[in-house]
Amino acid sequence: MAEPKHLTGDKAAIEEFLNKFDTFLFDCDGMLPPHSAPILSLAHVRRHPPTVFFHDSSLRKEQKYGYADGKELIFVTNNSTKSRADYKQKFDKLGIPAKVEEVFGSAYSAAVYISRILELPAGKKKVFVLGESGIEQELKAENVPYIGGTDPSLRRDVQQSDFEAIANGSALDPEVGVVLAGLDFHVNYLKYSLAFAYLRRGAKFLATNIDSTLPNAKTLFPGAGSVSSPLITATGTHPLSLGKPSQAMLDAVVGKFHFDRSRTCMVGDRLNTDIQFGIEGKLGGTLAVLTGVSKKEDFLGEGDGTGVKPAYYADTLGDLLV
Amino acid sequence: MAEPKHLTGDKAAIEEFLNKFDTFLFDCDGMLPPHSAPILSLAHVRRHPPTVFFHDSSLRKEQKYGYADGKELIFVTNNSTKSRADYKQKFDKLGIPAKVEEVFGSAYSAAVYISRILELPAGKKKVFVLGESGIEQELKAENVPYIGGTDPSLRRDVQQSDFEAIANGSALDPEVGVVLAGLDFHVNYLKYSLAFAYLRRGAKFLATNIDSTLPNAKTLFPGAGSVSSPLITATGTHPLSLGKPSQAMLDAVVGKFHFDRSRTCMVGDRLNTDIQFGIEGKLGGTLAVLTGVSKKEDFLGEGDGTGVKPAYYADTLGDLLV
Repeated sequence: MAEPKHLTGDKAAIEEFLNKFDTFLFDCDGMLPPHSAPILSLAHVRRHPPTVFFHDSSLRKEQKYGYADGKELIFVTNNSTKSRADYKQKFDKLGIPAKVEEVFGSAYSAAVYISRILELPAGKKKVFVLGESGIEQELKAENVPYIGGTDPSLRRDVQQSDFEAIANGSALDPEVGVVLAGLDFHVNYLKYSLAFAYLRRGAKFLATNIDSTLPNAKTLFPGAGSVSSPLITATGTHPLSLGKPSQAMLDAVVGKFHFDRSRTCMVGDRLNTDIQFGIEGKLGGTLAVLTGVSKKEDFLGEGDGTGVKPAYYADTLGDLLV
Repeated sequence: MAEPKHLTGDKAAIEEFLNKFDTFLFDCDGMLPPHSAPILSLAHVRRHPPTVFFHDSSLRKEQKYGYADGKELIFVTNNSTKSRADYKQKFDKLGIPAKVEEVFGSAYSAAVYISRILELPAGKKKVFVLGESGIEQELKAENVPYIGGTDPSLRRDVQQSDFEAIANGSALDPEVGVVLAGLDFHVNYLKYSLAFAYLRRGAKFLATNIDSTLPNAKTLFPGAGSVSSPLITATGTHPLSLGKPSQAMLDAVVGKFHFDRSRTCMVGDRLNTDIQFGIEGKLGGTLAVLTGVSKKEDFLGEGDGTGVKPAYYADTLGDLLV
């Protein structure tokens, strides 16, 4: 595979890069300098020119907006703790003119998969959620019934009576047919035990995403894939992931937006989610931005050994504003 | 490998079995009928006859004690939530004459490993515990300083300020050189984040045991190996386990009791811990009891595909009382 092309400081290469694509799929987190990692401040493209392309206030105050004509931009995020509506609010605060429909999150991806693709038998339509309100909101929007999630009655220590009520089934809802695991900042042994019991009774095992780590406060914390791993270890089975790099997610994105894959570029900071997602999905290109999880040592030369290499890379997203 | 010999109902085979061994290593949980799985009610052998061999009141009220001459019995348990002193109390309640010294638990095994084998550099002597008081008691008995564990200040939701304090190190104790993970019924995102941060800073990763499931209330719940798996997924590394089937544990047991391995039998209910422990340790024999996790389908004929087969099996421990 060709070595990734470095765009930073190369005006001609940037011009060529931008001309090559009509659609950009953008990751939402990890694309800014570490001090503002969790803050969305990316880019936006309108279908009709002139359109805001880059809004990058933290990098270049003097050049707040860049413009690009006729480009389409879709935000594709694995963060399941926020719904599309939550992201829309965040964009509004940042002054980025985005629509809810232009955000495609892993919680939404999972909700759509459950409501439109998964054929759950009658009486088994409920979802047990290990996760935060982002998942709940998207399930609600798709009319999928759920339990668990942010239910305050589950945010407590396990008792011996819980062991017994789970064992004899009285603590379990017989209508649960799916366990959906995402990032849950309120995991506990009780929720793991309930989810494990549902899986043992035959519930389908889905995950919004399986990122092992979560970038926050300039460093890494356990990600959705780590938080759900007790269920993988206990059951010996893996969930179907509806987030990057799962092609189930890309198929859903393409199904909704109908773009030409060969004229589409995936932009993100993480090799094993964003870049792999674009490569496996046979998109026209991939751009790695070095302000998040992956470093250039991970993909230049021998790299990290996984062989996942972006077609392009830039030190920061703002470097494209030349 | 020869098919396991079924002892139940075969008086001559039982006689031969008992004569073959001087020492029995006994698992502590899962050896009784499911309705009393977590209750210790096993067996005891004194070095000097006549000695109580089987105390099995729940199975055979009319035959409360069996006797065996000159046998040695050691309780080897992966349950790290209880200390040896806790087990002694349980034995006392059940009327089994045992000594603290005859119990060898995974928490004790880990504490001994840390204090006597692991050479921690000066200033890095503290252990961050993901687990319950059994681990704390054993560390205390070995004079190993620790933090975490049952500390009530960690039994709460994670806050954004925690992310920052972990990231900048102010929430971390610079003297922590080991993360020791065991079964923790009070796991939460804050504890996972702290443990992950210590591991990223170079702390050694140990586990009391890595059982994927925990038998309780007639069914299975997430075990120590499941509860600690977020740290494995997040770091991409595996802990050194100090519980069955780790031979580090058997070496410590032999080092303490100095028995002849060829005249020793491991008795337990779980193939991938108890039986594997005995086979890998080249003990004279292994006996599987069918009242716990593993079923005879798991080891007869093709079995579960792992090839782990006990030398003997019995439907219940009480079947040996003929």
